[in-house]
Amino acid sequence: MSASFRFDLISRQGKARAGIFHTPHGPIPTPIFAPVGTQASVKAVSPAQLAETGASLVLANTYHLYLRPGADLVAEMGGLHEFMRWPGPMLTDSGGFQVFSLSSMNKIDEDGVVFKSHIDGSLHRFTPEKSIEIQQQLGADIIMAFDECAPPHDRDYNQRAMGRTHAWAERCLKAKTRPDQALFGIVQGGVFADLREESARFITSLDFPGYAIGGLSVGESKQEMHAMLDLVPPLLPEDKPRYLMGVGSPEDLVNGILRGIDIFDCVLPTRLARHHAAMTLTGRLNLMNAAFSRDPRPIDPDCDCYTCREFSRAYLRHLISAKEILASTLLSIHNIRTLLRLVEACRQAILEGDFDRYAADFLRNYSKK
Amino acid sequence: MSASFRFDLISRQGKARAGIFHTPHGPIPTPIFAPVGTQASVKAVSPAQLAETGASLVLANTYHLYLRPGADLVAEMGGLHEFMRWPGPMLTDSGGFQVFSLSSMNKIDEDGVVFKSHIDGSLHRFTPEKSIEIQQQLGADIIMAFDECAPPHDRDYNQRAMGRTHAWAERCLKAKTRPDQALFGIVQGGVFADLREESARFITSLDFPGYAIGGLSVGESKQEMHAMLDLVPPLLPEDKPRYLMGVGSPEDLVNGILRGIDIFDCVLPTRLARHHAAMTLTGRLNLMNAAFSRDPRPIDPDCDCYTCREFSRAYLRHLISAKEILASTLLSIHNIRTLLRLVEACRQAILEGDFDRYAADFLRNYSKK
Repeated sequence: MSASFRFDLISRQGKARAGIFHTPHGPIPTPIFAPVGTQASVKAVSPAQLAETGASLVLANTYHLYLRPGADLVAEMGGLHEFMRWPGPMLTDSGGFQVFSLSSMNKIDEDGVVFKSHIDGSLHRFTPEKSIEIQQQLGADIIMAFDECAPPHDRDYNQRAMGRTHAWAERCLKAKTRPDQALFGIVQGGVFADLREESARFITSLDFPGYAIGGLSVGESKQEMHAMLDLVPPLLPEDKPRYLMGVGSPEDLVNGILRGIDIFDCVLPTRLARHHAAMTLTGRLNLMNAAFSRDPRPIDPDCDCYTCREFSRAYLRHLISAKEILASTLLSIHNIRTLLRLVEACRQAILEGDFDRYAADFLRNYSKK
Repeated sequence: MSASFRFDLISRQGKARAGIFHTPHGPIPTPIFAPVGTQASVKAVSPAQLAETGASLVLANTYHLYLRPGADLVAEMGGLHEFMRWPGPMLTDSGGFQVFSLSSMNKIDEDGVVFKSHIDGSLHRFTPEKSIEIQQQLGADIIMAFDECAPPHDRDYNQRAMGRTHAWAERCLKAKTRPDQALFGIVQGGVFADLREESARFITSLDFPGYAIGGLSVGESKQEMHAMLDLVPPLLPEDKPRYLMGVGSPEDLVNGILRGIDIFDCVLPTRLARHHAAMTLTGRLNLMNAAFSRDPRPIDPDCDCYTCREFSRAYLRHLISAKEILASTLLSIHNIRTLLRLVEACRQAILEGDFDRYAADFLRNYSKK
């Protein structure tokens, strides 16, 4: 691992871990939740507002930025941190997931994928080398190996996709040249224990500074997800960070941390915000509900975010009902802060040796209204 | 005038004035531009971001808030300041202008107006007494007399509307009871010098703590507007603030200040922001223009706003092109700050006795691209 990156494991309780992952743009306390700035903007939130939520790691999407405004343009403007003015640590995904889920056509072979832009239908080709080249132009602190995320229950597909993912992981390692970026490998394998085990053994045989678990929260049941999370983390090295990709509901965070995950990302808090839902540590509130129209209380009296310090549910409901942009901003700030408060509380509980009780209490009280 | 309100005229140069209007929610340095928060939100901008632009007076619309969420609800939540969390001075209009311009039907008689809600088609009635009742429920520092704004070139209509506006002004004064609100009278009369003069003489015969000029920037030519602004302010008392309603382009501000106006409001900066236009003190930039796609400069290197301190034109163009909400927020912040920088510079020039030169230079250099 380059000198710029170091993972300090500070405390463990059961499988749960508290640590710090050091990056060229500052330390990431783990466990951490990373808000997503798909197009180099965490939707409806300014970098100053985002910093106020206590966010550390922020994710951006390679597929979107490659198509618009273009990775060369971002590089010319000084890279992603400078372009979007996020001074803290950043992560880009490989673009693989979006090629399969967003483009209107894609054709895969052992070398890479040809796909159609969801914006203008133009044809493009991603290979492991191309994904790394783009991610090096974007310049995030953590970059991801180019992988293929298969439908979780299709065993044959998962076997073939895993084979490609493993070959591509080796090619990504070879292609990577920037010393100020940490390239993470990705374990795939769907819901199949033997494939997941094979994938974990292969990917950890390569020298990555961190390991991700992909292909979860993509259609499998909670039980299946938990089974994979029981299985995979013990197969990963203790001294490197573990990243569960695309997962971000409060109960998934706690269940992941219980099973040894350090890093999470998800569009959920900002997407829910644009659909009038406020997240709390005991469940969700739909603020469009007429019951809130004269409610002078903040969303969550225990929350310390700007939205909860300043505004009533009645005002937020009015903004939603009047279709004011500020509604999305204030709910996004609150939802992001809620997930950050949750990971901060988990981390504190791990440091104090009290996480088992914290997690049990949380999961008992949490209702996914 | 109630003890809560006092207008200190600090300096004059020609007809231009620099002063301070004291309100229960703090002082308003004049000349001032007031951003508009139609539905109790300055569109796309949080109160914290708005405070950072240096805004003092903020306007909200009685017609909109009466229809949604309802003035009784705002009152129950502690009034407009508390509801939207703007701690500074606020102004509400009378609702008259919107009844005539926004509702799908309106029927006027000497007593008031029946109109259809633009939201759900329901029928409502505004009278001078009702407008004051609503504005007292909302609780802004400055409230406005209920008036009728006629098409500027229809002499007969203007004569009739002026008669109603005068009778309604007297009824508004009688209806008003809250000592912590200043009720301003409004001069009407279209583009007709004799009507404007008659209106100014009548309205100033009533004891209002401030006077507004209505019915300008509603379809008349710039020449006609300037003729009315040459005529009316000298007919208003020196020791009370003068408010030119609904006017907010940079050159209109300078032309108004030159003619003795103290207060302006307009949706222009936030509306232009949502249409990709950045205001500067020399003209407008359409940031959607491809010429900006690789431009590393801020919108205006002389601007001290958050947007110009942090972000490049290239990034702003990307946000616009990618339809990110943050584009509206960042451009709104910049445009509001630009108009506030302009009135601050005018005020400073008046205090230094240099305003004639400042205004002449400004108007020579300004191009309404």
